[in-house]
Amino acid sequence: MVALGHEVTLGSRAKDNPVALDWARQAGGRAAAGTFAEAAAAAEVVVNAVGGRVALSALEAAGAQHLDGKVLIDVSNPLAFEEGQARLSPVESDSVAEQIQRAFPHARVVKTLNTVNCQVMVDPGRVPGEHVLFVCGEDAEAKEQVTALLGEFGWPAGRVLDLGGIREARAVEMWLPLWLSLFRAFGHADFNLELRRAR
Amino acid sequence: MVALGHEVTLGSRAKDNPVALDWARQAGGRAAAGTFAEAAAAAEVVVNAVGGRVALSALEAAGAQHLDGKVLIDVSNPLAFEEGQARLSPVESDSVAEQIQRAFPHARVVKTLNTVNCQVMVDPGRVPGEHVLFVCGEDAEAKEQVTALLGEFGWPAGRVLDLGGIREARAVEMWLPLWLSLFRAFGHADFNLELRRAR
Repeated sequence: MVALGHEVTLGSRAKDNPVALDWARQAGGRAAAGTFAEAAAAAEVVVNAVGGRVALSALEAAGAQHLDGKVLIDVSNPLAFEEGQARLSPVESDSVAEQIQRAFPHARVVKTLNTVNCQVMVDPGRVPGEHVLFVCGEDAEAKEQVTALLGEFGWPAGRVLDLGGIREARAVEMWLPLWLSLFRAFGHADFNLELRRAR
Repeated sequence: MVALGHEVTLGSRAKDNPVALDWARQAGGRAAAGTFAEAAAAAEVVVNAVGGRVALSALEAAGAQHLDGKVLIDVSNPLAFEEGQARLSPVESDSVAEQIQRAFPHARVVKTLNTVNCQVMVDPGRVPGEHVLFVCGEDAEAKEQVTALLGEFGWPAGRVLDLGGIREARAVEMWLPLWLSLFRAFGHADFNLELRRAR
């Protein structure tokens, strides 16, 4: 996002997170590092890129007053490895994106990007074909804004499918187990799904 | 399958199920209807096509002695609508196919076909493109036999992805919520996923 001309503040739990400070130094003048609250306060658009299981606590640290009215892009998956097995929680009867929207009712939550690897997220040309992303959320204008941002990453609007309200986040979060199976089968993460349809 | 020259016995809970008898009359000389036990006893290959939530009871009615050593194709999804919401059970920590394999350890369970609509199952040409199916199960020879049968339906072997053991059934059963979201978005069921990959 910095390379596209956006100002980005990487938020961390600790202000002096060495990894974040290092990233900011290397990423140049439009990049900064700070606490979750500083990052959210500075932002027009907030990206939740921490793991799905710690999303709520990170966003609480960011502070509701810094999220209200803002587009909040949730790219997370609620994944953890338990005894070597990939497990999701919440799953099926709830989703991270819904949890966030409930906890921060004035944030304009849009779920997207969680269905692909982080490199494919910002460089869809790594994978050939008309493969797709999904967006869902309650705020149509927020989804349009996010779709435009995805366009800057290289995702044409026609390849960003709007699935509906935030509840559809359950469906895209439940894609992860199949993604993991395919990752194991292919031996790499440079893949995505294309939807083929009769009409 | 009858049209492909296979003998098919459609099993039901009741021997005199009028829908099954009607189907057998119309489908011609290679088609029959009977109890679950009669259908399984007659079969070289058993297809579990009842709903995922009643699969175990239907297969218990079929009888372990009629399943042992046979290829058992599980095409089911554990779907139910509760208060208008699609819900899966089991989900994430278990799958129907694993339940079946545990209950009938001598059956050669192969999970497949549950990721597409029943019309696409037997007529993949309804949907354009190199869209795919998945197989998983513990028995490599059974998966090969099933892949050959899918070939008779029109699925080239290169479009049938082997995900591994029966545990991978969790992943393909968790595709259903996204399938349902897409079904709502498209307004029809003639679609499927194609996997695009860098290599």
